[in-house]
Amino acid sequence: MLLIKIGGGKGINWEGICRDVSSLVAESQVIVVHGASARRDEMAERLSIPTKTVESPSGITSVYTDEEALDVFLMVYAGLVNKKIVALMHKHGVNAVGLSGVDGRLWQARAKKEILVKDNGRIKLLRGNLTGRVEGVNTHLIRLLVENGYVPVICPPALSFESEIVNTDNDLAIGAMIECLRIRRIISLFEAPGLLKDPDDETTLISRINKKRLEDYLNFARSRMKKKIMGAQKALEGGAEVVYWADGRVERPVVGALEGRGTVIC
Amino acid sequence: MLLIKIGGGKGINWEGICRDVSSLVAESQVIVVHGASARRDEMAERLSIPTKTVESPSGITSVYTDEEALDVFLMVYAGLVNKKIVALMHKHGVNAVGLSGVDGRLWQARAKKEILVKDNGRIKLLRGNLTGRVEGVNTHLIRLLVENGYVPVICPPALSFESEIVNTDNDLAIGAMIECLRIRRIISLFEAPGLLKDPDDETTLISRINKKRLEDYLNFARSRMKKKIMGAQKALEGGAEVVYWADGRVERPVVGALEGRGTVIC
Repeated sequence: MLLIKIGGGKGINWEGICRDVSSLVAESQVIVVHGASARRDEMAERLSIPTKTVESPSGITSVYTDEEALDVFLMVYAGLVNKKIVALMHKHGVNAVGLSGVDGRLWQARAKKEILVKDNGRIKLLRGNLTGRVEGVNTHLIRLLVENGYVPVICPPALSFESEIVNTDNDLAIGAMIECLRIRRIISLFEAPGLLKDPDDETTLISRINKKRLEDYLNFARSRMKKKIMGAQKALEGGAEVVYWADGRVERPVVGALEGRGTVIC
Repeated sequence: MLLIKIGGGKGINWEGICRDVSSLVAESQVIVVHGASARRDEMAERLSIPTKTVESPSGITSVYTDEEALDVFLMVYAGLVNKKIVALMHKHGVNAVGLSGVDGRLWQARAKKEILVKDNGRIKLLRGNLTGRVEGVNTHLIRLLVENGYVPVICPPALSFESEIVNTDNDLAIGAMIECLRIRRIISLFEAPGLLKDPDDETTLISRINKKRLEDYLNFARSRMKKKIMGAQKALEGGAEVVYWADGRVERPVVGALEGRGTVIC
C-alpha cells in the first residue's frame, strides 16, 4: 500500500498528481491524504475569521481552532477541496472516494481541549481548542474501499471519542495510519524540492537521509519542516520502509518522487 | 432498504432523526440523503454570492448554479452540513459515512449546460449552468457500505459524464437510487406535517394518498411541493411501495413518519 500525502499549498500540480496516480493504481493500492491550508486561509479571510496560530512550549506552531474556525475548516477541506480533487481523479480515470476523518470514525482522536502555549515568552493554558490527536484508524473502512478498487482521498478533521469534530495534525494522523495499515511507502508532496540545507535556497536539496540519522536534520528545519521530520520519524517507527519528500509543483510529482528526485529517507 | 430524505430547512430536529436512525439500524438497512439549503443561503449571503433562482417554462423554480455558487454549495453541503450530520450520527451510535454524489461517481449525471427559463414572461436560453440530471447510481459502493454495517449519508452535488461537478435535484436523484437499489420504503422529512390541502394551514393535512391518484394532488402543491410529488411519482414508478412525507421538526421524526403521522402514499 502506497500513501501519498499532499500539502495544502497554492502551487500544487493537482492535474499532474491525478495523472500519476492513474498510472499507479493498476500495480499498487493507493491512499491519498491532503491538506488545504492555502484555500482555508483565503476563505477564513473572506469570512473575516482570520486563522489564529499558537506556539507550543517546544516552539511548534499550529492552528488554534475554535468553533468558527472549525466550520471554515470543514467547508474548505471536506467540502470544496476534497470534492474537487475527487472529481479531478475521476477525470483521470481514478475511482476516488473522498472521506474526512469524521466519516466512519476513520480518524479516531483524543480531544485536547486545553493546550499549553507560549505567549510573549510566557507559558499559559489555552481553553476551548477543538483539536485532537489521532489514536485510532478505521482500517476496516479503508481496506474495504481499497480492496474493492477505490482510492480513498482523505482529509482532516477527525472525530473525538466523544463524537466531536476536532482538527488534527495530518502528519501524526498519517503516522497512525501507517502503523495500523502496515503501509510501507509514503510520498509527501509539498512546495519545495525536498528537505533543503538552506530553506531559502532550493539548490541545497538533501537527496538521501539514513533514517537512523533523521533526528540530526532537525537543525536544518523550520517549524513546518520540523513537523514533517517528526511525522517521518513516527512513520518509520510504525513500520514504513521508505519516505519520499518531493516537489508537488513539478510536472510528474508522484513519479518524480518515486524516481528519487526529492529527499529519500530509508 | 429504507431511504430517509431530509430537507435542508432550519427547523429540522437532527438529534431526533439520529436517535430514530440508531433505533432502526438493527432491523433495517438505512440510507440517508440530505439537503442544506438554509445553511447554503446563509453562507452565500455572507460571502455576497446571493443564491439565484430561475423558473422553468412549466413553472418549477430551481437554483441557478454558476462556479461561485457551486463552490458555496460544495462547502456547505459536502463539508459543513454533511460532516456535522455524520458526527451526530456517531454520537448516537450510528456508523455513518458521509458521501457526496461526486464520490465514487455515486450520482452519475448528464450535464444540462443550457436551460430554458421564463424571464418576465418570455422564454429564453440560459448558458453556463452547472447542473445535471442523475441518470446512474454507483450501487456497488452503496451496497458495499450498507452490507458492511455503514449508514451512507449522501448529499449533492453529482458528477457529470465529463467528470465535472454539477448541482442536481435531490428528489430526482433519489428516484434513480430507488430504481437501481430496489428500495421499497422512502421517508421524506421537511418543515411541514406532510402534504397540506391549504399550504398555509397545518391542520389541513392529507394523511393518505392512493398512489394512482397522486397526480391529482398537484393542484394543492406549490413549487417545492410539486417537485416532491414528481419525486414520489418517480419513486413509485421505480418500484417503491410506500412513500412517507412527514414533519422533520417533531421529537421523533422518523418513527412518527413510519407510524403514519404525516402523509402516506401507497
